[in-house]
Amino acid sequence: MTQTVLLKNVLLNGQKRDVLITGNRFSKIADRLDEFAEQVIDAGGELALIPPFYNLHSHAAMTLLRGYADDMELFTWLQQYIWPAEALLTRNDVYWGTKLALLEMIHSGTVFVNDMYWHQAASVDAVEEMGLRAAIGYMFICVPGGGVLDSNRKANAELKERAANCSSRIHITYAPHAIYTVNEQTLLEIAAEAKQENAVLHIHAAETMKEVEDCQAQQGLTPIAYLDRLGLLNEKTVLAHCTHLSDEDIAIISERQSVIAHNPVSNMKLCSGLFRFQAALEAGCKIGIGTDGCASNNNLSMLEEMKFAALSAKVQSAQPTAGKDQDIFAAATQSGCALFDLDGGQIKEGKLADALLVRLNHPQMLGDYNLIANLVYSADSSVIDTLICDGKVLMQQGRIDGEEEILARNREICRKIACVRPS
Amino acid sequence: MTQTVLLKNVLLNGQKRDVLITGNRFSKIADRLDEFAEQVIDAGGELALIPPFYNLHSHAAMTLLRGYADDMELFTWLQQYIWPAEALLTRNDVYWGTKLALLEMIHSGTVFVNDMYWHQAASVDAVEEMGLRAAIGYMFICVPGGGVLDSNRKANAELKERAANCSSRIHITYAPHAIYTVNEQTLLEIAAEAKQENAVLHIHAAETMKEVEDCQAQQGLTPIAYLDRLGLLNEKTVLAHCTHLSDEDIAIISERQSVIAHNPVSNMKLCSGLFRFQAALEAGCKIGIGTDGCASNNNLSMLEEMKFAALSAKVQSAQPTAGKDQDIFAAATQSGCALFDLDGGQIKEGKLADALLVRLNHPQMLGDYNLIANLVYSADSSVIDTLICDGKVLMQQGRIDGEEEILARNREICRKIACVRPS
Repeated sequence: MTQTVLLKNVLLNGQKRDVLITGNRFSKIADRLDEFAEQVIDAGGELALIPPFYNLHSHAAMTLLRGYADDMELFTWLQQYIWPAEALLTRNDVYWGTKLALLEMIHSGTVFVNDMYWHQAASVDAVEEMGLRAAIGYMFICVPGGGVLDSNRKANAELKERAANCSSRIHITYAPHAIYTVNEQTLLEIAAEAKQENAVLHIHAAETMKEVEDCQAQQGLTPIAYLDRLGLLNEKTVLAHCTHLSDEDIAIISERQSVIAHNPVSNMKLCSGLFRFQAALEAGCKIGIGTDGCASNNNLSMLEEMKFAALSAKVQSAQPTAGKDQDIFAAATQSGCALFDLDGGQIKEGKLADALLVRLNHPQMLGDYNLIANLVYSADSSVIDTLICDGKVLMQQGRIDGEEEILARNREICRKIACVRPS
Repeated sequence: MTQTVLLKNVLLNGQKRDVLITGNRFSKIADRLDEFAEQVIDAGGELALIPPFYNLHSHAAMTLLRGYADDMELFTWLQQYIWPAEALLTRNDVYWGTKLALLEMIHSGTVFVNDMYWHQAASVDAVEEMGLRAAIGYMFICVPGGGVLDSNRKANAELKERAANCSSRIHITYAPHAIYTVNEQTLLEIAAEAKQENAVLHIHAAETMKEVEDCQAQQGLTPIAYLDRLGLLNEKTVLAHCTHLSDEDIAIISERQSVIAHNPVSNMKLCSGLFRFQAALEAGCKIGIGTDGCASNNNLSMLEEMKFAALSAKVQSAQPTAGKDQDIFAAATQSGCALFDLDGGQIKEGKLADALLVRLNHPQMLGDYNLIANLVYSADSSVIDTLICDGKVLMQQGRIDGEEEILARNREICRKIACVRPS
């Protein structure tokens, strides 16, 4: 039998409405509905119904490295802290670390993550069990001078096999790490395979000035122009970071309709640079927002990321009118849907039933002149009451099934990792 | 009889301890205490006991203008939105708006605010009733070409009179708005009165490039050098913003031991500029952190402000090692205590009993390698379980007495203000 959920007395665009969910779609929206439903949630006119967040770039299991190494030079951070700790991570660790990430995402209103990491078949299991959506890519990295390792190919094959037996909530991506960690031949091979599978290609691009300078020196092109020359830029390509874009780069990305995954917190914390949000937006680029991983953020809150995106846009352009709340909110709620052909991002009859119930009777939400401004500039996760993904209620009144076990398992894994941390 | 509170099984610097509060001081800290106490809170080893936040610059009642006007040019924002709305605010509005601010502050772990606004006798009432600490200053502004209005003097006298009958939690400051809104003669008069009363002087300084350029043109000096020439800089002076400091300005502030109130969110949102945190810290300047008011933030969370302070320091200096978590946490928890001679900011026997109990069994707090890093970079208000100010428990398990009425009253006031909002 098809599952039904009835939301009573929610505020939708400022009006009190009833909303029926049948299966994984919004089926009816009206002033009053008295249909039978298996689950009824009465918001009492105090909860707003809004689209949830779609996180366009993360390394979910890096929750295991939250607070492990901060305030360091990139080289020290990677070589002495992050890489040795990551070398310890087993498939089981990634499974629980991803669950911890999903727990945090649910609490802060996110239903989807575009994830790139290792042991990704375990991540598929975690997402399937927790009920969210995800696009999952195995992060390809070449050994110096060589191509993609056989182990990379094997891991990616395992991921595809696992995902083939999954719900429609799971998408597979091809995720070569970056142009400086994957050689040209391998990039072309991976891109060809992605195209054949009609899958999204997910890559870090133009993240640091060093990447741009090295690419200029080696190819005589910016990273974006280089990726374009290789034929890798199209409407199924996600470019993470893009902190260093020339006007020409912006024109290329706009022309190809590739999607920029903007990660303002990580870019600021690692001093990578500030993405030209307003310039890219005005040039017609598609822009989404991502949190990056916990080692460089250190949380997965899209609410917080929206505020950093807005303020970073203003600082970068020296214009307080840049990074407007409505544009930032759209980037956080709609770009991911469009890219992965998810018929969501809006609360309308017939659309996928992904939604948040947000507390309005909350200090962070008063004055109550502008809900979107309050979400972008004021709210934190304490305003999120209920999260619905694909028609299922994954959190109600802040409670999520299985939370205690996830926390306990992750605490154990952190004890193991702490043993290798340089003091 | 002196009030007692016993905190059982709290984590203090990673160790499980019992802590007795007698009156408004921590009286005993030990592995185990079995003393009788009127109130007992058992943390079960899952809550960390840490110092709370001291917010060094705000306009608390501007909660009433949260989300009222965003993403605008400064001039449009002030002239068409903020000033006409502020003109409507009565003493009663400021009373309830301040209570809303204090509610939000308690939820996010703040026990003290250095406040500058109007109708401040009402703010004193709000703080007294809610149980927090505050330093409250009437914001002096001159009429063009004139001195301080009689109404300013009268309002300040009323504030002093009201505060004279208050608890030791209330401090009075002298708060001339800025060098471009208060003329030289009046600045000197206000400073002389502050000195006579041994009170803190609280002023906006070097907030925008225009302020610096105008001061250079009119006085041949930077705002900091000008304030120093007037003799206004000493260890009882708080300089809000300081987004544009020369090396010489930093040397002056360090020499005079004045305190900088750093407001990174407001500075970024209004495109004022980025404070040179690391340079000022290394030059020996005293630095605290403030949220500014809700019209330019738009919340009052010191947790969020710490993250913006750390990331703003990194971006400003282009050094990921700038704005270290420990330095940021110290600025948010200790500078306010030192300035206002509050014997707090530390959890030690004999110190003022201001404290937070923070949830460790929480997704934002795992990995659990570094509590301070987790507070600065990951946590939002959902980790704050209990707040204690001056020995009294103001919030326990997220519940605050009287919250519903404060929200309802503010909702009514917002309806009035909404009527004058340009559409």
